Amino acid sequence: MINSQIQHLQESYIQYLEQNPFLGKPQNLYDPMNYILSLGGKRVRPLLSLIGNKSAKGDISNALPIAHLVEVFHNFSLVHDDIMDNADVRRGKPTVHIKWDMPTAILSGDNLLVKTFEIWNKYSGPFKQEILECYIQTAVDVCEGQQKDMDFATAEESISENAYLDMIRQKTAVLLGAALKMGFLSAGGDPLHSDTFYQFALQTGMSFQMMDDYLDSFGSESKTGKKQGGDIIEGKNTWLKIKSLEIDAIKTNALFSIQGELRIEPVIQYWKEIGLDVGIQKLATTYHQQSLKSLDQLKEWGYDVELLEALSHWLLGRDN
Amino acid sequence: MINSQIQHLQESYIQYLEQNPFLGKPQNLYDPMNYILSLGGKRVRPLLSLIGNKSAKGDISNALPIAHLVEVFHNFSLVHDDIMDNADVRRGKPTVHIKWDMPTAILSGDNLLVKTFEIWNKYSGPFKQEILECYIQTAVDVCEGQQKDMDFATAEESISENAYLDMIRQKTAVLLGAALKMGFLSAGGDPLHSDTFYQFALQTGMSFQMMDDYLDSFGSESKTGKKQGGDIIEGKNTWLKIKSLEIDAIKTNALFSIQGELRIEPVIQYWKEIGLDVGIQKLATTYHQQSLKSLDQLKEWGYDVELLEALSHWLLGRDN
Repeated sequence: MINSQIQHLQESYIQYLEQNPFLGKPQNLYDPMNYILSLGGKRVRPLLSLIGNKSAKGDISNALPIAHLVEVFHNFSLVHDDIMDNADVRRGKPTVHIKWDMPTAILSGDNLLVKTFEIWNKYSGPFKQEILECYIQTAVDVCEGQQKDMDFATAEESISENAYLDMIRQKTAVLLGAALKMGFLSAGGDPLHSDTFYQFALQTGMSFQMMDDYLDSFGSESKTGKKQGGDIIEGKNTWLKIKSLEIDAIKTNALFSIQGELRIEPVIQYWKEIGLDVGIQKLATTYHQQSLKSLDQLKEWGYDVELLEALSHWLLGRDN
Repeated sequence: MINSQIQHLQESYIQYLEQNPFLGKPQNLYDPMNYILSLGGKRVRPLLSLIGNKSAKGDISNALPIAHLVEVFHNFSLVHDDIMDNADVRRGKPTVHIKWDMPTAILSGDNLLVKTFEIWNKYSGPFKQEILECYIQTAVDVCEGQQKDMDFATAEESISENAYLDMIRQKTAVLLGAALKMGFLSAGGDPLHSDTFYQFALQTGMSFQMMDDYLDSFGSESKTGKKQGGDIIEGKNTWLKIKSLEIDAIKTNALFSIQGELRIEPVIQYWKEIGLDVGIQKLATTYHQQSLKSLDQLKEWGYDVELLEALSHWLLGRDN
């Protein structure tokens, strides 16, 4: 169940978003930008920025543009990733390159990216420079992570566990870290503490990703609401597949050579035999425990971590 | 013939470029970024920045990162435009999405765009803030201009001359204006004068574009080195085609319905009949005269405009 304070912050951001549509011409450039931002989702990243700000008793009016910057960047990456991944649907709606066309999707994504720097430029709260440094490094990380992910998809050599986890870190976790850190900085919080905020969200993100991968293969459809084995059908590189290849490449490749849905059951069976269901839960737990250590440190420094705990619980479904 | 001082500045930039390759992993992300930047070209935009700086007796070490920012942005737009335009070749070499693939081209373009802000962030010369404002507005203009260009290509209604010229202004001329203005600002020049620098380069760019379109249809192959009528075969929206449609849409469409190379001669013939060859030269002259007025103003303020004159002469092949 979502904490009512978290829900309140979520609503604050949604209101801000609605009050700040992108305005400009031509329509074919600006409509897709507003469309992708309107598709919803949990708004985890802006939420992290608002929570970071609140943890340090900041002024929410400084956190809202930072939350927006992060969400706009995230949506830029969605528009471009959907082209690269050939995805037709996002959140039950057609993706931008399907609803419009590919050139329009490239260009409206580009303009979203430019607009993040316009948002930053208008920001007038604390630690403007530190926020930019963090943001630029994050944007580069996300590009590198996405390219690594694409490289892995066509790699002929085996991918190491470390390389895989590093890709996930760059592609998805660092933006969560940056969202929280930049929100914290927008409260004028002590910059020496900002990296612990970053680490907390990054570790939570890594734990979330591992839980997500666990549930995709081992979760029950009634709980997740998603069809079991989606990643397996796609042949997606996950920690599970990479570990499986590491343990027995011949067996793993043989199982993945089975066509379509018939592949799911034997793969899951094999992964249970070699203990990957337990392994990935352990890894998720390890990241979760690291995040709890970061949280303890923040508590020690006197920050109000209640909302961070609630968010972690909401995302990971764990009692802390 | 290119002025030796201009050539010297060009070489300074090329040296800077070679000394500042993009470093990072994975290779599939960074190689395309360095590849596109290595393809050459006249380097007009970085040159404008260096000349802007020199006109106000600035320190070239402040202008070089600004020149680089502009050239990197330009190359980002080339990588993405080549995908949108389905172009296989650029400067005699395969485009990024051909040499690598489309996802890699999208992503390496994205990273080039992010890197422009990293370059700006490291810039430590005068008027850092003013340079950013100019750059962000320019980046938005270029995105809008490119979208308008794409919209025009599929438009069912007729395009007005003004709408067309405004598209050209945004898509190509403003970046020239910004390159010169930002270079001038990097010399610590009086910001009240910066817009006249901007206008000079913008007007020169508009004049260049009109001359380029004139030469494509009416120039001799021996002088231009390009096949006559390329724009006509492509059916590209140019000032000539738009004016022709405005004067007689039925006739123009009939001529453009002729297939392939056979179309060139009758279209050129018709355009000469209705005086468009003279018309576009007049328009080029008008922009050129405006640029000379800007130049006079700059002279009056005491700037050294010799290199601006030389550049204009080099680009437009006109005696001032």
